[in-house]
Amino acid sequence: MAWFRNLIQLSSSTARQSSPSSSFLKLGLSAASPFTPFSPFTTHTTEPPTKYAGLPPTKPDEKPRIVVLGSGWAGCRLLKDIDTNIYDVVCVSPRNHMVFTPLLASTCVGTLEFRSVAEPIGRIQPAISREPNSYFFLSNCTAVDADKHVVHCQTVTDGVQTLDPWNFEIAYDKLVIAAGSQALTFGIKGVEEHAIFLREVHNAQDIRRKLLLNLMLSDVPGVTEEEKMRLLHCVVVGGGPTGVEFSGELSDFIMRDVHQRYAHVKDYIHVTLIEANEILSSFDDRLRRYATKQLVKSGVRLVRGIVKDVEPKKIILSDGTDVPYGLLVWSTGVGPSSFVQKMDFPKSPGGRIGVDQWLRIPTAQDVFAIGDCCGFLESTKNPVLPALAQVAERQGKYLAKRLNKIGESGRGHANAGKEIEDLGDPFVYKHLGSMATVGRYKALVDLRQSKAAKGVSMAGFVSWFIWRSAYLTRVISWRNRFYVAINWFTTFIFGRDISRI
Amino acid sequence: MAWFRNLIQLSSSTARQSSPSSSFLKLGLSAASPFTPFSPFTTHTTEPPTKYAGLPPTKPDEKPRIVVLGSGWAGCRLLKDIDTNIYDVVCVSPRNHMVFTPLLASTCVGTLEFRSVAEPIGRIQPAISREPNSYFFLSNCTAVDADKHVVHCQTVTDGVQTLDPWNFEIAYDKLVIAAGSQALTFGIKGVEEHAIFLREVHNAQDIRRKLLLNLMLSDVPGVTEEEKMRLLHCVVVGGGPTGVEFSGELSDFIMRDVHQRYAHVKDYIHVTLIEANEILSSFDDRLRRYATKQLVKSGVRLVRGIVKDVEPKKIILSDGTDVPYGLLVWSTGVGPSSFVQKMDFPKSPGGRIGVDQWLRIPTAQDVFAIGDCCGFLESTKNPVLPALAQVAERQGKYLAKRLNKIGESGRGHANAGKEIEDLGDPFVYKHLGSMATVGRYKALVDLRQSKAAKGVSMAGFVSWFIWRSAYLTRVISWRNRFYVAINWFTTFIFGRDISRI
Repeated sequence: MAWFRNLIQLSSSTARQSSPSSSFLKLGLSAASPFTPFSPFTTHTTEPPTKYAGLPPTKPDEKPRIVVLGSGWAGCRLLKDIDTNIYDVVCVSPRNHMVFTPLLASTCVGTLEFRSVAEPIGRIQPAISREPNSYFFLSNCTAVDADKHVVHCQTVTDGVQTLDPWNFEIAYDKLVIAAGSQALTFGIKGVEEHAIFLREVHNAQDIRRKLLLNLMLSDVPGVTEEEKMRLLHCVVVGGGPTGVEFSGELSDFIMRDVHQRYAHVKDYIHVTLIEANEILSSFDDRLRRYATKQLVKSGVRLVRGIVKDVEPKKIILSDGTDVPYGLLVWSTGVGPSSFVQKMDFPKSPGGRIGVDQWLRIPTAQDVFAIGDCCGFLESTKNPVLPALAQVAERQGKYLAKRLNKIGESGRGHANAGKEIEDLGDPFVYKHLGSMATVGRYKALVDLRQSKAAKGVSMAGFVSWFIWRSAYLTRVISWRNRFYVAINWFTTFIFGRDISRI
Repeated sequence: MAWFRNLIQLSSSTARQSSPSSSFLKLGLSAASPFTPFSPFTTHTTEPPTKYAGLPPTKPDEKPRIVVLGSGWAGCRLLKDIDTNIYDVVCVSPRNHMVFTPLLASTCVGTLEFRSVAEPIGRIQPAISREPNSYFFLSNCTAVDADKHVVHCQTVTDGVQTLDPWNFEIAYDKLVIAAGSQALTFGIKGVEEHAIFLREVHNAQDIRRKLLLNLMLSDVPGVTEEEKMRLLHCVVVGGGPTGVEFSGELSDFIMRDVHQRYAHVKDYIHVTLIEANEILSSFDDRLRRYATKQLVKSGVRLVRGIVKDVEPKKIILSDGTDVPYGLLVWSTGVGPSSFVQKMDFPKSPGGRIGVDQWLRIPTAQDVFAIGDCCGFLESTKNPVLPALAQVAERQGKYLAKRLNKIGESGRGHANAGKEIEDLGDPFVYKHLGSMATVGRYKALVDLRQSKAAKGVSMAGFVSWFIWRSAYLTRVISWRNRFYVAINWFTTFIFGRDISRI
C-alpha cells in the first residue's frame, strides 16, 4: 500500500500549505516532491492473499449469524424484523435493493420513476451497513452445504474491468432461503431472447427504452406503413394482474401522452393482450367482466391464444397465426428457479423447496425457506401457496418473529438443539384480498379470502383510490412514499416524462 | 396490413360482446373466428417501399423548413425561440432530450435524479410532436450537401432486434449546425476504453453504477486490502469546473452517505483530482485558493501531473508514477468532433466550423453554425469563444431571432437571396460570469466579464445559495424545476439513494 500512503502524505502536506496566509497552492511534482517515492503498484503484495476466504463460523461468545439468500418481499421483510441485538445478519443477493413489484408496471411508461419503486436494503435493515459483523454481499449463492452449515457464493461483478468474479464461503447459524422464482416460458423457443419480462427494475427500463425508441423510429422517413404498424404493436402475453396492469398503464400512456407528444404516429400504436385462458383468473366474475370492458374501452385488444414460437419480429400462435410485434412483454407467471431446481432438498408439489408448517426444511438443521421459492411438503397436507408478495411478506414476518424467539432463548447458534419445544404456532396464511388497476383511474379490489368465499369485491374509481392509498402506505421508506406521491402528482399535472435516457 | 385489420375486427367484435348484459367475454379463436383470415406477415408488401426516402424540398406555398442538427444548449435554445408560425422545424439528434449539463455531476452520486436534468425536446419545442410537418428524428447526420440544400442522415437504432439503421435525406431551407464537440483525450491510449466522460446522462449512470458496484465489491470477503484500496480510489482527471464539481459532490457523498451506509469500507474510499496545470483556471486567484482549500478540507487529494497512459486498473503519469484506480472520470475539456473535422467547410482557429459574425458559414448559402461546434473565422478578427453552455445558449437565442426576422420578411425559403440588407447586429458575446460548487454548501461565483476585468467574485455559502437559485431558475421546464427542488430537499432530509438499478 506504499502508493497510497504516499498519496496521503502528499495531500496532508498540501493541506498544510493551503493555510490562509499561503499563496495559491502549488501542486507541482518537483524532483523533491513527496510523490517521487511512489512505489509502483503491483499485484504481488506481501500481505496474505485473502481470496477464496469468507466468514468463519461464529464463536459461542459472539452473536449468532443469520444468512439470508435473496432480497425480495420475503427476505426483506425478514431482514427488517430480525432483532439485530440478538443476531448478526448477512444478506446475499445479486441486487442491492428490493423492488416494490406491484408498482413496477407503472414505471415502464413513466407514471412513476424507477427509483421510487426500489428500496435499498441498507434502508430496510441499517445494521448491514453499520454493524461490524452484519453485511450485504452483492453475490449469487452457488451451493448450500447444510451438513457443514456453509453457503458457497460468487460475486456479481457485471463487467470486465473491475474484477473477475470470485468465490467465498459464509458459515451460518441459521440460513433463510428466500431466493424467489423465475419467469415461466413453458419451453417456448425465443421467449428468453426476444421478450422482456416484468420482474426487475432493469426490465422496466428496457421496456421503456424500447417503447420510446419504437415511437421515434416509426416517425423517421423510410419506414414502410407495415413496419410502422409492427414497431408500434405492443403485445403482452399473460392476463394475470401484471399483464393486465401493464396493458392498462400502456393504454393510459397512449391515450394521454402519445396522442399529445407523438401526434404523427398516434394512430399506429396498439396494445394486444394474449391470454390462453381467462384474464385475472383469481378475481371474481363480475370484476373480470368489468376489467375486460375497461381494457377494451381503453383500446387494448384482448386475444385468446396460445403462443407456439417467438421470433425476433413476430410471434406465432398455436393455430398458425402470425402476430408481428415491436415490443413483447412476457408475464405468464413464475416457477422454480434453476437454483431451486438443482438444490438437494425435498420438494413440494410443483418443484419448490419443501418446507413444513414452521417453514423449516425438515432434512436440514437450521435451514428455512420462505417466499416464492418454497412450498409446503405434501406430507403437511397444506396446499402450496400462490407466488404472491403478500404470502412472501407474511412468511418473512412470521419467520423473523420465530427466529427472534429462538435467539432470545439462547439457541440462536448452529445446532443448538432441536427447537421442537418452542415451535410456537405454525404458519397459517390468510388471504387479505387482491387488487389490480385496469388503466385510467379504475381498479379492482377483491377482499374475499378465496375464490369461493363471500366478501366485498368492487371495481371503479373508489377501488382505484383504495389501490393507490393501500400501495402508498405499503411502500417501505418514507423517502419512497414521498417520491411515489410526488411522481403521481407530477404525472397528473405535467404528463409523463418521455426522455429516453 | 391485413393482419392488423383482422386484429382490429376481432377486438371490435369482442367490444360489442362485452356489453353489460353479456356474460364474461369469450375470447376464443374458433375455426370461424375473425382471426382465421389473418394473412401471414411478410416483409414483401405491395405498398411502395419508402426506404431511403426523406423530406423533399418545400414548395413556395409551404412554410420554409429549418433543420437543426443537435440537441444541446445551442440547438435547443434555437428550437425554443423559433417562430413555428413561420417555419417548420426538424431536429436531428442521437438523443431525444437536452441535458442540463451544469447539474450532471450531481446526478452521479444521487443528489439529483437523472431525469431531473434531462429535458425532452418535445417539451422544449412542442411543434415537433404536434405540427404535421415538424419532426424530431433520432438519427445522426452523416453528411451535408450545401449545394443541393440536403442533409444525409442515418437512424440510431441502438439494438439489433428492432430494425437495421437506414439512411434518409432531408431537404432544408435553412440549416443550423449545432452538433457540439467531443471530449478531448489528447491521443492518450486507453482513455476511451477505461475512463468515463461526464457529458451525457448515460455517462453519469455508468459512474453511479460503477461507484456503487465498487463500494459493494470491496466489502465482500476475498478482496485483498490492496484491491480494496484500488477499487475505492476515485480518480478525476481535469481540474476544470466539471472535474472540480464532480470531486466536490463525490467527497460530499463520501462524508455524508458512505460513512453512514458503507461503514465497513469508509476508510478505504478516496478521491484524487489530477490536473496538469492549475484547477479552475478561468476563475480569479482568490476563488481558486478558496476552492483548493475546500477540496483539500473535504478530503480530495489534489495532484499536479500529466497522464501518459491509461490501463484497465491504473493510470501512469508522465513521471512514471502508477496511480491505481477503481473509477476514472475524464474531464479535460472538449474539441472538434469527428463530424466537424470531416466537414468540408472553412475552419476557425482550433478546427471548429468557421462562421462570420452573423454565425453564417460564408461558403454555404443558408447554413449556420452555433455552439461548441463553431468558432469565429480568423478573418472576423474575433477570438474563438470558449465551449460554454452560456455561449451556446446565447448563440441559439441570437440566431433564432435573426431567422425569425428573415422568415417574417418572406425570405425563409432556400436561396431566397442574400440577406445582406437586413443583417442586423452581429453576434457579440458578453460573459456573465462563472459559477462552480466545491462540495458541501460551498460554491464560487465570479461575475467578472473576463479574467482581467474588475467585478464581483465571491465564495462560500452565499455563493452556493446563488449557485443553486440561479440553476434552479435556469432549468427549462417547470416539471424539472420542481423535481430538482424536490431532489435537493429529499437529499437534505433522507440522504442520497443508493439502490443500484
